[in-house]
Amino acid sequence: MEARDLETERTTARRRPERVSHDCAAVYAILDAAPCCHVGFVADGQPYVIPTIHARVDDRLYLHGSAASRTLRVLASGVPVCVTATLVDGLVLARSAFHHSMNYRSVVVLGTAFELTDDAARSAALAAIVERLVPGRWSHVRAPSAAELRATRVLALPIVEASAKVRRGGPIEDDADLGVPVWAGELPLRLLPGEPIPDARLDRGAVVPEHVRRLDARRF
Amino acid sequence: MEARDLETERTTARRRPERVSHDCAAVYAILDAAPCCHVGFVADGQPYVIPTIHARVDDRLYLHGSAASRTLRVLASGVPVCVTATLVDGLVLARSAFHHSMNYRSVVVLGTAFELTDDAARSAALAAIVERLVPGRWSHVRAPSAAELRATRVLALPIVEASAKVRRGGPIEDDADLGVPVWAGELPLRLLPGEPIPDARLDRGAVVPEHVRRLDARRF
Repeated sequence: MEARDLETERTTARRRPERVSHDCAAVYAILDAAPCCHVGFVADGQPYVIPTIHARVDDRLYLHGSAASRTLRVLASGVPVCVTATLVDGLVLARSAFHHSMNYRSVVVLGTAFELTDDAARSAALAAIVERLVPGRWSHVRAPSAAELRATRVLALPIVEASAKVRRGGPIEDDADLGVPVWAGELPLRLLPGEPIPDARLDRGAVVPEHVRRLDARRF
Repeated sequence: MEARDLETERTTARRRPERVSHDCAAVYAILDAAPCCHVGFVADGQPYVIPTIHARVDDRLYLHGSAASRTLRVLASGVPVCVTATLVDGLVLARSAFHHSMNYRSVVVLGTAFELTDDAARSAALAAIVERLVPGRWSHVRAPSAAELRATRVLALPIVEASAKVRRGGPIEDDADLGVPVWAGELPLRLLPGEPIPDARLDRGAVVPEHVRRLDARRF
């Protein structure tokens, strides 16, 4: 992994720089772990923030959606975009109201996306999105048809300007508050898979395959 | 609960209107369930999307942060804002690559925030934020001092223009794909609490109180 620095004036931490990193390994790890991201763009002077799924391959973030989606159409026009991916890791319970907090990992990527036009590149990006969330699945499913590819817009956002911010651990606490008679600590939170629910039209007794069963150990 | 309609031209669904609601009960339920939200605003022509925690009281969304935070300062100046809260509910595994999806609940709120200046109102908003995430905690912790309140900016965003979007259930599938020999269905995902981790400076043997233990049943 190259130790590329993604810091710019716009991604410099103004506060709590000890929680912020511009190392691309730190940025990539959070993008790869987050189940979804939030895409920010401006239309008619109004910011919009839309949740979507993504995949990172090398120094590109891939997004996709319906060719009819306004969000994708606006982003494809080359407007400035912000993609933020956040994992909630826990609640931080302090003795003072003031020091309550949340543990999290988040990444902010700033830049401009462009549309993939080559069908092989588009198909590879879609495969990366499916494979990131369900490793091993792509080879089992019917690949996109030409009509489905036409109905899908695929965008690439080069990751050149980004920052990662992480808070972990227990509460920061003023010494004067240590005697406050209340439990303090951290309540970890994790996004965990439940039991797979088979599709109603699946043959009875269809076995949950290995690539789905191992999602049970999926670490978000 | 009043059946207020939060639809405007800007929050009208252009696609899949069957997944979208502008009913304020639907919007409130998702805002109340989401552990955090993403705030979008524009500075120097660049959109930024920042994760933060929130609470809703009646038709207002409260946000807070350091008085030194750029995000809060920009929002307090009355620029257009978008707050989006998303819960990831599951992965949808179809027989075709094309119909893979995610189950989720999300809300988009558009508007303009204003700063709370009255200390009692600010304190009440901060209490709402702590109580939403950890019901029953506020009365046990040291309340904010005057200096802490001065160091904190509290914003209110009236919820007058918003939409909720929900996808649930198994895969949509083309009939022609029903014979594809692959397991299909849904993998539910839930953000679940783990074991509370006591602060290192807590007395040994400090009992985890009822208001923390019952977070085990917290439904995000």
